[in-house]
Amino acid sequence: MAEKNFADRLLDAVADKKTPLVVGLDPSYDLLPNAITGHKDFNDGSDVETAVDALLEYSTRVLKLVAPHVAAVKINSAFFEAYYWYGYEAFYSLVQEAAAHGLLVINDAKRADIGNSSERYAAGTLADPSFDSLDDLVGPDAVTVNPYMGSDSVAPFIQTAKEHGKGIFVLVRTSNSGAAEIQDLPMASGQPLYMHVAKLVESWGASSIGQRGYSAVGAVVGATNPAQLAELRRVMPSTLFLVPGLGAQGATPADVAKAFKSDGTGAIVNASRSIIYAYNDPKYKDVGTNWEKAIELALLDTKRQLAEALGQ
Amino acid sequence: MAEKNFADRLLDAVADKKTPLVVGLDPSYDLLPNAITGHKDFNDGSDVETAVDALLEYSTRVLKLVAPHVAAVKINSAFFEAYYWYGYEAFYSLVQEAAAHGLLVINDAKRADIGNSSERYAAGTLADPSFDSLDDLVGPDAVTVNPYMGSDSVAPFIQTAKEHGKGIFVLVRTSNSGAAEIQDLPMASGQPLYMHVAKLVESWGASSIGQRGYSAVGAVVGATNPAQLAELRRVMPSTLFLVPGLGAQGATPADVAKAFKSDGTGAIVNASRSIIYAYNDPKYKDVGTNWEKAIELALLDTKRQLAEALGQ
Repeated sequence: MAEKNFADRLLDAVADKKTPLVVGLDPSYDLLPNAITGHKDFNDGSDVETAVDALLEYSTRVLKLVAPHVAAVKINSAFFEAYYWYGYEAFYSLVQEAAAHGLLVINDAKRADIGNSSERYAAGTLADPSFDSLDDLVGPDAVTVNPYMGSDSVAPFIQTAKEHGKGIFVLVRTSNSGAAEIQDLPMASGQPLYMHVAKLVESWGASSIGQRGYSAVGAVVGATNPAQLAELRRVMPSTLFLVPGLGAQGATPADVAKAFKSDGTGAIVNASRSIIYAYNDPKYKDVGTNWEKAIELALLDTKRQLAEALGQ
Repeated sequence: MAEKNFADRLLDAVADKKTPLVVGLDPSYDLLPNAITGHKDFNDGSDVETAVDALLEYSTRVLKLVAPHVAAVKINSAFFEAYYWYGYEAFYSLVQEAAAHGLLVINDAKRADIGNSSERYAAGTLADPSFDSLDDLVGPDAVTVNPYMGSDSVAPFIQTAKEHGKGIFVLVRTSNSGAAEIQDLPMASGQPLYMHVAKLVESWGASSIGQRGYSAVGAVVGATNPAQLAELRRVMPSTLFLVPGLGAQGATPADVAKAFKSDGTGAIVNASRSIIYAYNDPKYKDVGTNWEKAIELALLDTKRQLAEALGQ
């Protein structure tokens, strides 16, 4: 079917919600509010089904809370895969829930393999399920992809994205400390490795550029170094950035501003722990046991700080 | 618990089976034998549960067939994840089945993320499950890991491996054509990127070296270039290689011989499609509809060719 370009869908939603902020959902049983883990239905984290039920209850409520305020959520697949097939099924339930709320979903799964394996990963992590009994389900709207194995490992994700009106975000320069050991390595050309990957990613998107000038092939770019971010923004004019690490990982709204063009487009910014665990932050202690209120306040604070940093 | 070092366990099993060959299980419904997909219980590939039942029936029979002949199987997670949670559960059933046959299992899942996410991936792809209701299950013996995000993304896998007497294989130089675009890039040092990664991987293994001189941190190294393979063998003396691509991906037994030291140790060699789909190979047409016999013949042929190439 002829779907609308993913970048256009995402940017329309960003314009509608008036923020490039996306909320990252990385739920850990041990950090859930007492109101959930203390409830008799959810109070045994050593039982896999009970633990998954707790994650699902919490995550469903978070999705409902954030849906009026942001365009998209980034769901971290690892936090569900730790619960085996129970977690995997819960992940897909959340994708349906998010879609029902009009939220786009980025599946942060960081996959890639040789071509025929990447086809399977693209089916499992991105496509809308094609099996008879699952054909009411939708897949995520985008997936994160690791570039280490090169073009032929990424191509099946791009193909699946195009067929389903979806997108991918390729890791270019990640925000963790160890990223420097590989991604920053100086190459014979004089440039760091991530710059070479950046140019590949920009080229991979050339055939999927939408009406707003961005392709369905985005890039994951951390905000650890503003000069680096500005340089990447320059060499990847058609690439949407997914900028992780706002808040708990240390990046500030001012840091991430360099990911944007002067027209205010070009990136979405993810905050996970600083929002979804706001009820553990002394800053929001006035809400008492109303953990949902703390999340909403943190979300609105972050949204406002980001708007200020972007001059919006 | 104090488990035996993974490299020792693997090399003991290789010595016992007298071959470094491992069989790769990448089952595609469309390529299964007619004896399975034509059976009334398995003949609807458009139904997710039926398709998974077919994969499981086939894979279980393949495991049983190959168990007397090889030390380990490499199960490609992508081919199961394409079937969502049904596939994920089937994957774990196969791990139990393999363990019951005394086969080691390499989970070819190619994961990695920032540290707290990699912890979850290590739990879901490598550890023995810790939940009460799953505590009879064993996890795989090893998992493949992508190095693009650096040491802190790999460390949780190494930690989990040590705690459970398991191992990892880090992608160093993969066998696909696109690998050259990233992994072969010349660095300012004059060496290709994969050589830098190789040295990191060797260093990551330093604290888990077993009695046979190899660490629990192995490397995935393709056999596309014999000179490259020999050089990697030299700079990674304590690292076991997992060499993919024998057969269908184009590598010959002579190509892979460079992955070994002169004492005949140092690598395991994976063949997937050339063995598990041998019933589609005209070379084995004499077996008629006895698809299992074709697989066994292909396995024994490959094992013999490999022994000859290694002078064993």
